[in-house]
Amino acid sequence: MSAIPEEFIKNTSKLSEEVTRPFRNSRKVYVTGSRDDIRVGMREIDQDDTPDSMGFEVNPPIPVYDTSGPFSDPEVEIDLMKGMPDVRGNWILERNDTEELDGPTSEFGTERQNNPELASLRFEHISKPRRALAGKNVTQMHYARQGIITPEMEYVAIRENQKLTELRKDPAYKKLLRQHPGESFGASIPDEMTAEFVRSEIACGRAIIPANINHPEVEPMIIGRNFRVKVNTNIGNSAVTSSIEEEVEKMAWSARWGGDTLMDLSTGKNIHETREWILRNAPMPIGTVPIYQALEKVNGKAEDLTWEIFRDTLIEQAEQGVDYFTIHAGVLLKYVPLTAERVTGIVSRGGSIMAKWCLAHHQESFLYTHFEDICEIMKAYDVSFSLGDGLRPGSLADANDAAQFGELETLGELTKVAWEHDIQVMIEGPGHVPLQMIKENMDKELQDCFEAPFYTLGPLTTDIAPGYDHITSALGAANIGWYGCAMLCYVTPKEHLGLPNKDDVREGIITYKVAAHAADLAKGNPGAQIRDNAMSKARFEFRWEDQFNLGLDPEKAREYHDETLPKESAKVAHFCSMCGPHFCSMKISQDVRDYAKKQGISEGEALEQGMQEKAIEFIDKGAEIYNKA
Amino acid sequence: MSAIPEEFIKNTSKLSEEVTRPFRNSRKVYVTGSRDDIRVGMREIDQDDTPDSMGFEVNPPIPVYDTSGPFSDPEVEIDLMKGMPDVRGNWILERNDTEELDGPTSEFGTERQNNPELASLRFEHISKPRRALAGKNVTQMHYARQGIITPEMEYVAIRENQKLTELRKDPAYKKLLRQHPGESFGASIPDEMTAEFVRSEIACGRAIIPANINHPEVEPMIIGRNFRVKVNTNIGNSAVTSSIEEEVEKMAWSARWGGDTLMDLSTGKNIHETREWILRNAPMPIGTVPIYQALEKVNGKAEDLTWEIFRDTLIEQAEQGVDYFTIHAGVLLKYVPLTAERVTGIVSRGGSIMAKWCLAHHQESFLYTHFEDICEIMKAYDVSFSLGDGLRPGSLADANDAAQFGELETLGELTKVAWEHDIQVMIEGPGHVPLQMIKENMDKELQDCFEAPFYTLGPLTTDIAPGYDHITSALGAANIGWYGCAMLCYVTPKEHLGLPNKDDVREGIITYKVAAHAADLAKGNPGAQIRDNAMSKARFEFRWEDQFNLGLDPEKAREYHDETLPKESAKVAHFCSMCGPHFCSMKISQDVRDYAKKQGISEGEALEQGMQEKAIEFIDKGAEIYNKA
Repeated sequence: MSAIPEEFIKNTSKLSEEVTRPFRNSRKVYVTGSRDDIRVGMREIDQDDTPDSMGFEVNPPIPVYDTSGPFSDPEVEIDLMKGMPDVRGNWILERNDTEELDGPTSEFGTERQNNPELASLRFEHISKPRRALAGKNVTQMHYARQGIITPEMEYVAIRENQKLTELRKDPAYKKLLRQHPGESFGASIPDEMTAEFVRSEIACGRAIIPANINHPEVEPMIIGRNFRVKVNTNIGNSAVTSSIEEEVEKMAWSARWGGDTLMDLSTGKNIHETREWILRNAPMPIGTVPIYQALEKVNGKAEDLTWEIFRDTLIEQAEQGVDYFTIHAGVLLKYVPLTAERVTGIVSRGGSIMAKWCLAHHQESFLYTHFEDICEIMKAYDVSFSLGDGLRPGSLADANDAAQFGELETLGELTKVAWEHDIQVMIEGPGHVPLQMIKENMDKELQDCFEAPFYTLGPLTTDIAPGYDHITSALGAANIGWYGCAMLCYVTPKEHLGLPNKDDVREGIITYKVAAHAADLAKGNPGAQIRDNAMSKARFEFRWEDQFNLGLDPEKAREYHDETLPKESAKVAHFCSMCGPHFCSMKISQDVRDYAKKQGISEGEALEQGMQEKAIEFIDKGAEIYNKA
Repeated sequence: MSAIPEEFIKNTSKLSEEVTRPFRNSRKVYVTGSRDDIRVGMREIDQDDTPDSMGFEVNPPIPVYDTSGPFSDPEVEIDLMKGMPDVRGNWILERNDTEELDGPTSEFGTERQNNPELASLRFEHISKPRRALAGKNVTQMHYARQGIITPEMEYVAIRENQKLTELRKDPAYKKLLRQHPGESFGASIPDEMTAEFVRSEIACGRAIIPANINHPEVEPMIIGRNFRVKVNTNIGNSAVTSSIEEEVEKMAWSARWGGDTLMDLSTGKNIHETREWILRNAPMPIGTVPIYQALEKVNGKAEDLTWEIFRDTLIEQAEQGVDYFTIHAGVLLKYVPLTAERVTGIVSRGGSIMAKWCLAHHQESFLYTHFEDICEIMKAYDVSFSLGDGLRPGSLADANDAAQFGELETLGELTKVAWEHDIQVMIEGPGHVPLQMIKENMDKELQDCFEAPFYTLGPLTTDIAPGYDHITSALGAANIGWYGCAMLCYVTPKEHLGLPNKDDVREGIITYKVAAHAADLAKGNPGAQIRDNAMSKARFEFRWEDQFNLGLDPEKAREYHDETLPKESAKVAHFCSMCGPHFCSMKISQDVRDYAKKQGISEGEALEQGMQEKAIEFIDKGAEIYNKA
């Protein structure tokens, strides 16, 4: 019998309809790898045929990268009480380098596990944690450096490839595959993703697969400049108002709209239990900032933090399955005074906590002095480092200053240390940076941190638009993604003002998917333009349903269209509300082209042959048809 | 007695409250030039003092560029029936090179004027149109080339300068004036704007002041790469549903949020009258696409268009006071077949109308063959050319192709012709272009069109986000603005989907103000960073009211803040809803800094002297205060 109250079960066993409702004309498909248990989920968007009047053509389905995991698979029964399907369990077991522990080995984890008062909150099906066998290193980087291609690597190769090899062989995709050459600023994106390429990128530290051995539910994904640009989202309220089910719902909401990874920044008294619920249901890698929880354990007094408390927190979270830890180990004593003349001082929470600790103790932080100890923990679970930029600028005025760049150099030194342990590393970046100073950030990161993946918050390119900071920052995010940034941390319209609601989260994610995709196109990522081309063709052929469905947010596109032309008939009309039937330029172009096609001659030839009169006749006939529509 | 029905008067005499309500803590100020009737309106945002607890300081008012004209001046009684104050009337008269006509000289204008049925719709106080005296040329470029600095030129110099010279002398602004060096890609932005610089830029064609002699209500503004990047908005429904008062309200709405110029793209039967209402009330330059109205005159049949009908339309609109005409004179026969293999053909309405005409008549368009005749009309009223890109790409796939760039070269040839007549010219640009191909557009425009100002629609950097095209395009707009584009035509979230409502228009404008400002910062436009710096300081000092007020959209910022923390007390709280009082990094930084200041030593010194304990004490005391807030 469950110890969990019925009310709670009712609330948490299901996600809301708006989180799981299928996208119209989309199918979940799986591509199987070299073994049956490598099944990579994708979404395929079916398209209507080109109407007869415009020269019948079958328009093939468009496969798109899918972050929504099991939530969008009608074959999977979503029961949050049981958690999501196990994707990686066998792969981890097969490697024979981990052991199942009797239970949590952290003090805090043990205490929470044994506290009967928490029974009603606790996720029921907690597995026992695993850990590397003594002397073993279980990181993806460790395997990669030994020349081993793990199932995780093969998985991400298939995932990044998005059926491109197959599409290239199919004549139906020939025109859709047309793409402009990119400018990648020194990235080396292969024409086709292979597992071996993934391995080599991880081996040299240019990419990471955040995948804790205690998070077997994760669908592996890769972060690196030679792969698709990724988007991170955040959840977690600062207040204690939000409940566990709300946080889980937000996680799934993020997955639905395209969040590639998710940071759980929750605070409050039940964060351990909340995290368990999130991890057991999360198909994406989960990151945290462990110092936040450590601070709670000392009642918010930064100077009371100790290495022991922090260490216990790392183990607690690693055994739950957190995939990457933000650790602000680069906040050195010598950098803190460099922030005194800043307009906005230290704006990173983690950075200011550590700065306060350093000042109080007048010594380097335990994150820095115990960095090797931290590495020992990370590699026993394969937790990736996200080396935090505690001194990032909080305003344009403070961009690219000595404090910021000093810390970045230290992060580079720490990267080298982590790599000696074969631990995967990414580097966090700013923040607030005007357009002309963004490239310096990217170039410096590549140089100082030896091409470890860069993961930036925006950057915001101006400070004067509170309420629109998803946009001020998307401008910077698109550019830094183009220059080589591997992952973009989203910003919502509520940034600097308040807590994002669901609409804000969706707006923030889509805005960042736009920025990431614009960057992929600019870099010339193979296949990136397929969806754009399909959309443009649908647009030209007035296939309204397809235009909605091919978009990043089909629901909003449909809603906006229907505000002006709500009738179903308008969705097959060969014009739209902007110009009406008479003025439609798309129609005129199509008419001209159709006429030429029907005559079996090119438009230019038709012109030469003086057949313009007939063309006009045809166009007018067309116009009549449209007017009746 | 007025012939206008009372109902109509009631609706049109006043703008709605949301269009005219003052921004909190903002004052309308005027800077007077070398003569009393050069009075340049600006907005000054007053700021609160830095609270005592953070080291009392008076924060000076921040002057910002103001597009809202008389609508934001409490001293001006807004009566749409009478129109807005005359700004330029005397300047035009003084030049003694124009004559007042007896009435409209266009056939259509005369007919509308004499039609008694239109009395109820007609603007009551129509002045008689003016025209250049025979043999005279009344363009700003003509004066500039003769070495004459017009009041219009002085006006824009003051306007662009935004009191910078004065601010530089005032110690209160010293820190606020700190700014990063820009990268302007060859622009030559002076450290201080002078009327002589404005004159020289207009003389060489690098900038324009769109200001028809029949639009004396306009507050002169300048478009050029060595000035602030501007934003154009559009109004005008394709349907006949929207009324005159709605269009006027939209125009004022655009002015409120920052639209620098406005294109009236109205169609429908009363566009002549609608345009008159708009012009008589518009403080910003108004542009049109005359071919749209000409097409209406031939019942939408493009092939029935004639030079005579078009010519009459130009004169009709020039005599009403339209400041710039979009004319698609670069759509040549030879380019049309180049669009046949495109994914989205011809997407410009004007372009497709002309292509259809060319095909029907198998000859070059009258816009091209009569270009010299058009010039004769333009210079008699000082209407500026906005040479339309009829063959702009409608999808990423079609970007930078032979049709687009062929047309651009022709626009360059036409620019030279126009400049022989001393007519002001800007060049319209795309459209849909991936990030890595945007700079080629800018560079080619500068070269082929001899640095005539570029005016682009976006460009959209991806096609896959209908519902978010204000954002897909802002990414391109910010970059092309940075590279040298002089004006950005806004895009609303409804692009490709439907007609924008008021919220969409506001969202589109603010998004584009963000892009334009990000570009100004990136170019290093002098003084551009003042507002960002003021905002950042307010943010650091938790001056919430000032944060709202300094933003591009104070109302939305306040609304978003209040969603989470609605109480007034939260607006003086030294923390925000994101982190709460305990975790606030801004607070910790400020505490550290304050402590150092109170001790009369720098933070670094405090550290050295081992005074960290006292610092912590101070910080904790601070934390208590915040917790009580």
